[in-house]
Amino acid sequence: MAELAQLCIDITERYSLIVASNRGPVEYRSADNGELVPRHTSGGVVTALGALPDGTDLTWVSSALGEADRRASSSAGLSKIPKPIPQFTGSIKFVKPSRRVYHKYYNIICNPLLWFLHHYMWNTPYSPNVDSTVYDAWSSGYLQVNQTFASGIIEEVDASSKPGLVMLHDYHLYLCAGMLRKMRPDLMIQHYVHVPWPEARYWNMLPQDIVNEICASLCKTNILGFQTMADSRNFLSTVELSDLDTTIDWGNQTISMDGHTCKLKIYPMGINPSEVVSISQSPRVIERRRTLMESSTDISIVRIDRAEPSKNIVRALKAYEILLKNRKDLCGRVTFWACIVPSRSHIRQYQRYLEEIRQEIARINTGYSTDTWAPVVALIENNYLQAVAAMTFYDVLLVNTISEGTNLIAQEGPLINSRNGVVVLSNTSGVYPSLKEGVISVSPADLEGTSDALARAISLTPEERESKQILLRNSIQAMSLSNWLSVQFADLMDI
Amino acid sequence: MAELAQLCIDITERYSLIVASNRGPVEYRSADNGELVPRHTSGGVVTALGALPDGTDLTWVSSALGEADRRASSSAGLSKIPKPIPQFTGSIKFVKPSRRVYHKYYNIICNPLLWFLHHYMWNTPYSPNVDSTVYDAWSSGYLQVNQTFASGIIEEVDASSKPGLVMLHDYHLYLCAGMLRKMRPDLMIQHYVHVPWPEARYWNMLPQDIVNEICASLCKTNILGFQTMADSRNFLSTVELSDLDTTIDWGNQTISMDGHTCKLKIYPMGINPSEVVSISQSPRVIERRRTLMESSTDISIVRIDRAEPSKNIVRALKAYEILLKNRKDLCGRVTFWACIVPSRSHIRQYQRYLEEIRQEIARINTGYSTDTWAPVVALIENNYLQAVAAMTFYDVLLVNTISEGTNLIAQEGPLINSRNGVVVLSNTSGVYPSLKEGVISVSPADLEGTSDALARAISLTPEERESKQILLRNSIQAMSLSNWLSVQFADLMDI
Repeated sequence: MAELAQLCIDITERYSLIVASNRGPVEYRSADNGELVPRHTSGGVVTALGALPDGTDLTWVSSALGEADRRASSSAGLSKIPKPIPQFTGSIKFVKPSRRVYHKYYNIICNPLLWFLHHYMWNTPYSPNVDSTVYDAWSSGYLQVNQTFASGIIEEVDASSKPGLVMLHDYHLYLCAGMLRKMRPDLMIQHYVHVPWPEARYWNMLPQDIVNEICASLCKTNILGFQTMADSRNFLSTVELSDLDTTIDWGNQTISMDGHTCKLKIYPMGINPSEVVSISQSPRVIERRRTLMESSTDISIVRIDRAEPSKNIVRALKAYEILLKNRKDLCGRVTFWACIVPSRSHIRQYQRYLEEIRQEIARINTGYSTDTWAPVVALIENNYLQAVAAMTFYDVLLVNTISEGTNLIAQEGPLINSRNGVVVLSNTSGVYPSLKEGVISVSPADLEGTSDALARAISLTPEERESKQILLRNSIQAMSLSNWLSVQFADLMDI
Repeated sequence: MAELAQLCIDITERYSLIVASNRGPVEYRSADNGELVPRHTSGGVVTALGALPDGTDLTWVSSALGEADRRASSSAGLSKIPKPIPQFTGSIKFVKPSRRVYHKYYNIICNPLLWFLHHYMWNTPYSPNVDSTVYDAWSSGYLQVNQTFASGIIEEVDASSKPGLVMLHDYHLYLCAGMLRKMRPDLMIQHYVHVPWPEARYWNMLPQDIVNEICASLCKTNILGFQTMADSRNFLSTVELSDLDTTIDWGNQTISMDGHTCKLKIYPMGINPSEVVSISQSPRVIERRRTLMESSTDISIVRIDRAEPSKNIVRALKAYEILLKNRKDLCGRVTFWACIVPSRSHIRQYQRYLEEIRQEIARINTGYSTDTWAPVVALIENNYLQAVAAMTFYDVLLVNTISEGTNLIAQEGPLINSRNGVVVLSNTSGVYPSLKEGVISVSPADLEGTSDALARAISLTPEERESKQILLRNSIQAMSLSNWLSVQFADLMDI
């Protein structure tokens, strides 16, 4: 396969490249003097496409998130803003649904409904409840915003003499592909789903019309990308159980509908290795590491995550407590670093979850602390550099997630850890199939097994640790974001 | 395909037929004089195999559930009891795990863990928690009972000069096939899974060893039967993600492992049509119908189920309330008959669920009742004849389950209903693929859609009602238990 740089040249020679995601690479704020100041954002999609070479000719369509974005968009007097910041050399184009429409789209459909669905977070006998509010938010929120995106994208397609290639991202824009295909039957469309795709009957908790519309739209892509084979198979199953009239080829992973064929592909998403290495060598991280190490013990277990119910932090703590109970010899010698970022704290379930994390930590520290030792160090704040510092010195990195598209920490840690620390990884994480040879695996509900896995990780010989570290580094390099993009571009060039 | 009677003759000429399920067709009680009195039981598996012709030569292996079963088993002085009751003309054989072992197997593994798993009933951030109690119950409960079954089955296999054919049932006996295959490599083994099979990553919440052991055992069957294609696909996916070294043929639905090939088949489970028709014509049902009709209104919506969280009764009531709110013209004219059987009331979630059903009913009745009309009639008791009576006169039969292997009510109702009543059926029920042409479908979380479906069902013309009724009756006859068994026997004869 050619290098990413060459593939980008090939792609942009052939196509007018348009990327679309709800959140774009740039957002504006109003300075005190009223001036509009752009800054680089840091979401998952933005990081992923950050691997594109500088100077790649593309337009990125995203939602105007605040008033400043709207103003920037209007004041440019152009349909798009070229080279808004040094870190992003393409053009950005904001779509501007009304606040009311955006609220319905984002706060009723995307986050509480689709995110919970994608991560098996419903307590099915009680949630969700699809009432008239949800129906309204679907038709006058989600559908509207997707229509606004589709129109914005078509403007860009039409502005170029080259044929368009549209790369759509994630669960916010499920209906775009279908709308685009209707308007421009020959458009090249790829959609990448960052989150796990649950099985058909879990989807079918939702109104069948919603499931049909989403599936029908995604079947209108040329390539539909997922993180893992399990997601892809579940998508096929969802289409099979839907009311759509399709032909599914399970072996080749294709779906034909209305004379169009959609190809499903697996693109496990990686990270940018050099970036995290460079951050880990920054003076602030080195300084933070030094401070943290002052209160460190022999053995460091590190758990880094958002306080998100699907991340399973409470069970991580419970498993650690079992370890302390079973292995008195470790008391005083081991520290559990809980680097927890508060998240979506306006949602009840998230508030409750963070509260339970705090209680669990307090309970363990009350039960096991001595005058000179606390078993858990709680670092509950949004502090990425501190998390990077913790990643440099873990002996065990615990990633026991219930459900997630991929996991960045499990990929960043091994690249910058200086102790050949061991990764204990949930076998339900989207990144598990890519890393399984180099980790100790756990099942998320398995408290006893997670405790055993921690004990095993601690007891590995230096040689075993090193060999796992090498395996992990190789896998992580192989799935780097440049490679992730290269494979996608190569597939698109092959069509 | 030959008739069931002929197939039974063919099968039992070729094989020594052994059926195994946790609960058997007969249980004993001690009469006041100490005498052991056998009676016919009524579980799902027993009903299913009740379609076997009288005189079919088979041995049914099941757990001795009470002291009387144990005594009956010993006092017979035989390894099995032939023709224990007129309704069952085969032989029964009790296996007798100790109470302690059985408790771990049934009350820790089968019901709280496997049943909840199979029906997506976990609130994943909080349940389940696999601790040392669960591990212990797995190895010294579930595994033990399965071993006891396997030994009992082998005794029967060895007692015959014919080769053995073993038909294993449901989630209680997942490990038997593997144990049997090890002891008798040439044995013909079929396992039928009555419950839905959730997707791989939901399974993988549990310890990987448990999932591996279950999958490995089921892969050692000759035929593995499921209710629907979605279950079968999920099983393949679970095996694919497991640590087992297998070759999966997705097109032909086969799995090869250790030189053995297992074939997956779909056998949607039906009912015995003549039985329910005959019950519906019994004097007690006719009398009960008459009494119920005295308090009936124009339109009867009937909801019959166990008070089981996966059955979605609370949402059924909420949807009905939306109907009353939107359609004032129906107030006074419609009655919701809630025939609810209390279930597993020793389990906290079930207690809570029944309580919420009662509250929901009280709330609706408080809000909408008039001097002469109550919108909901609550019949909360275990009274099958009363449920049959209600099935004879519904205008709408609401079956909005979240998750279930099949549904008997949705099959019984259309056969005995005298009004060409309409079935509103959840598209996540295992019976949905078989009945979908004749029902109005709903999604279980869709309150608004369920209310609309009720309104649509009420508004159908007599001709539309009749044509749906005919479609349903044809489907239900086609999937009757005799046919269900015939297809299985024909497949087994073909191997």
